Amino acid sequence: MEETIKDLQASGDVLFLMLGAVMVFAMHAGFAFLEVGSVRKKNQVNGLCKIICDWGISTIVYFLVGFPIAYGISFLKPASGLLGVSQGFELVHFFFLLAFAACIPAIISGGIAERAKFWPQALAGGIFVGFVYPFFESLVWGKNLLLGQEGSWLAGLTGGIPFHDYAGSVVVHSIGGWLALPAIIILGPRIGRYKGEKSTWIKVSSLPFLALGSWILTVGWFGFNVMSAQSLTGISGLVAINSLMAMVGGIIAALVVSKNDAAFIHNGALAGLIAICAGSDVVHPLGALAIGACGAVIFVFGFEVETEKYRIDDVLGVWPLHGIVGSF
Amino acid sequence: MEETIKDLQASGDVLFLMLGAVMVFAMHAGFAFLEVGSVRKKNQVNGLCKIICDWGISTIVYFLVGFPIAYGISFLKPASGLLGVSQGFELVHFFFLLAFAACIPAIISGGIAERAKFWPQALAGGIFVGFVYPFFESLVWGKNLLLGQEGSWLAGLTGGIPFHDYAGSVVVHSIGGWLALPAIIILGPRIGRYKGEKSTWIKVSSLPFLALGSWILTVGWFGFNVMSAQSLTGISGLVAINSLMAMVGGIIAALVVSKNDAAFIHNGALAGLIAICAGSDVVHPLGALAIGACGAVIFVFGFEVETEKYRIDDVLGVWPLHGIVGSF
Amino acid sequence: MEETIKDLQASGDVLFLMLGAVMVFAMHAGFAFLEVGSVRKKNQVNGLCKIICDWGISTIVYFLVGFPIAYGISFLKPASGLLGVSQGFELVHFFFLLAFAACIPAIISGGIAERAKFWPQALAGGIFVGFVYPFFESLVWGKNLLLGQEGSWLAGLTGGIPFHDYAGSVVVHSIGGWLALPAIIILGPRIGRYKGEKSTWIKVSSLPFLALGSWILTVGWFGFNVMSAQSLTGISGLVAINSLMAMVGGIIAALVVSKNDAAFIHNGALAGLIAICAGSDVVHPLGALAIGACGAVIFVFGFEVETEKYRIDDVLGVWPLHGIVGSF
Repeated sequence: MEETIKDLQASGDVLFLMLGAVMVFAMHAGFAFLEVGSVRKKNQVNGLCKIICDWGISTIVYFLVGFPIAYGISFLKPASGLLGVSQGFELVHFFFLLAFAACIPAIISGGIAERAKFWPQALAGGIFVGFVYPFFESLVWGKNLLLGQEGSWLAGLTGGIPFHDYAGSVVVHSIGGWLALPAIIILGPRIGRYKGEKSTWIKVSSLPFLALGSWILTVGWFGFNVMSAQSLTGISGLVAINSLMAMVGGIIAALVVSKNDAAFIHNGALAGLIAICAGSDVVHPLGALAIGACGAVIFVFGFEVETEKYRIDDVLGVWPLHGIVGSF
Repeated sequence: MEETIKDLQASGDVLFLMLGAVMVFAMHAGFAFLEVGSVRKKNQVNGLCKIICDWGISTIVYFLVGFPIAYGISFLKPASGLLGVSQGFELVHFFFLLAFAACIPAIISGGIAERAKFWPQALAGGIFVGFVYPFFESLVWGKNLLLGQEGSWLAGLTGGIPFHDYAGSVVVHSIGGWLALPAIIILGPRIGRYKGEKSTWIKVSSLPFLALGSWILTVGWFGFNVMSAQSLTGISGLVAINSLMAMVGGIIAALVVSKNDAAFIHNGALAGLIAICAGSDVVHPLGALAIGACGAVIFVFGFEVETEKYRIDDVLGVWPLHGIVGSF
Repeated sequence: MEETIKDLQASGDVLFLMLGAVMVFAMHAGFAFLEVGSVRKKNQVNGLCKIICDWGISTIVYFLVGFPIAYGISFLKPASGLLGVSQGFELVHFFFLLAFAACIPAIISGGIAERAKFWPQALAGGIFVGFVYPFFESLVWGKNLLLGQEGSWLAGLTGGIPFHDYAGSVVVHSIGGWLALPAIIILGPRIGRYKGEKSTWIKVSSLPFLALGSWILTVGWFGFNVMSAQSLTGISGLVAINSLMAMVGGIIAALVVSKNDAAFIHNGALAGLIAICAGSDVVHPLGALAIGACGAVIFVFGFEVETEKYRIDDVLGVWPLHGIVGSF
């Protein structure tokens, strides 16, 4: 009977993390449609190819290089040994973390949309997922005891308080957003975006597709945040509600601040969710509401300052969205 | 070991209800795209904003006012106290019931599409979700022992038979549909819909988006019905199959009765699902098939009588769909 | 306490299979949008109706005839008896296998898109799901001990090695693909597709919808493959990862071989997933990567040979996709 319980627990954990992985994988469809809706019509197909191919390259690179760097676990052994005693929990764990890692090129892709050549971007994405991101990841969640772990260097420094990032506000979104910024600046604005003094707003091509992307992302986000518990018995209803409240804070704040602009409202939900990732397991739901609202306000004003004052043509607003909001 | 089992059970319940809540939350994307596909092109963006903002307002109002009214549970206490001993089950329970409550403005929105001003509608939605709906809810499922509970007033009257509404046919759909009717009548038809004697059919703008909305709703509906068990061990395969059969009954009946009209077929699936909500835990699958078929037939004829004879311009047919079918 | 464990196990199994069934059901939305995106604009609505109505007809026929043929279980008994001691596990099992069975008309539909009349096709679909498919199914997974079961005729012949098809590469995809081939040939090419010597490529109408269909299918596929374990404690992380790797192999191979063609890339992911279904529980992830890549290469070249050399106008490429790749 004891064995039945262990079996149930192990299977429950695998199912739990698998559902999370699939939900975060589905978020990549959200990235794709957010970009499809935001870019000009002629670049829609291009955006779709980029996202799905980046996913493919990320998987291979993270499987072979990134995951071993971050956690010291390699899968280059016979298939029978991979399942182990835990019904392949490590494999599903890889899938879950891969879905996080692959967000990096997807986030950057949104920033440099309509300008980057396919192969250089794919190559850069591969390097980020294979080397740069796993290095940061290992510092916070992984095997290099520096920032995030109990007993890490930072925890020693602060008397036992490690760096707290429950679902990757910093690890995923900040890194993605800040990596995107130089890329956007180097590539320069899209042709026709700024003419002399004049700043010409390029309309989104399809708000329904943009909204579809946003909806897919918000739904998948519950997998991103809730399943960050990484085991069934670690599940917390508070994380789910805080994600919900932050999203709502983002929606309402964006509605008010942007004066009812549909694109900002749908991105505001995402800004709220990004802002809450790190603290979603500790704050009160009303705190989450406020954090989400702040995230969206920062996003809306940040986007305007960035694109008008500094004239950085960030198509999907990824630097203010992921970079600033994630750091905050 | 006993503790492990209790842990597993509590976590299983939280996961179960969380999945349900996320699925019903995803249904709101379905409402959005059903409306996008059904309205004229110029009002697509408007519809998208309404649904997502209604969700935001509903969340805040139901959190602060509605849920306490219906169940007497308030969350205005420290975050550490919220998790309690059940890993935040009450919070997820709130999320699940919120997703139900927020259907009310979403349903009404479909009926008055293309006419209502943004803020008055948002305000009205907030009042419905914060006060009107929770009051009805409390009578059937909640703390006011009137209709639905064992030991309620109605059960006393009928000798122990309380009002049976497993997944909210009446509580959600009837109320939504009947509340929508006066709103539609007061606002009057869209300009150009009826000219003197002539009734001009306004074409749906995008059948693919309408179908997308319908598909999202049908998939999410399994969360709506199955997770109404509200605990993992209460799950019932019969509820799943009855939902399936009623949906199929709705599809086939709408196909035959409407003579192969795409919009009716996709709405027929929803009519079938609405009809079965209340009884999905007791009837036989073949009975569910018949109930679903009746639901779709009532919807198709009801819609024609309503829009042609009574000249009520109900864009998404929410009164016959939710109001009549839900009551039946 | 022992009872609690049994309850948990039974409920876990029902939930597990229900999630799988809903995910595979959602795949039918994927079929619908893959077809919407691939056909000409005027036939989009038609495609949507076909898929949803085929689902309806399949459900009724498989419930009444197909499932009893394949597994010898009939549901024509009182509702109270249906739940049994396992909370309706058999019913959810039926739902899961129905979602597989209904893929047959959906696959065929893609091949003969834009030509078939509605009712003849619906009738043929019903016959396939009600009789032809369940017969094959019974041989491999069901009650007729011929190929797939331990103790079957084939296992006796080969000394205990039954035919291995974990998630239906052959049972679902090969049968679907090969049944489609004669239908496509008999119906002949679409008008204007081949003119004398000239082969005129008919452009896909909407790549975003095609991509949406592909994304829905890939996400749902994890339900298709992982939940083929059919019980919670049988879950295997290896199956999830192998599905992932085969999909990625398909994407990358299609990207290289088709020289960056968006439609091929998105179908390549599906080709990879089809190729891995049968062996997803035994091979190594790197093997899965290779199998997926082969699947996509076969698909891309097979499609070109089929449509150019043999001039078979297979709109969605279902014969090379499901027929050849599935057999392989």
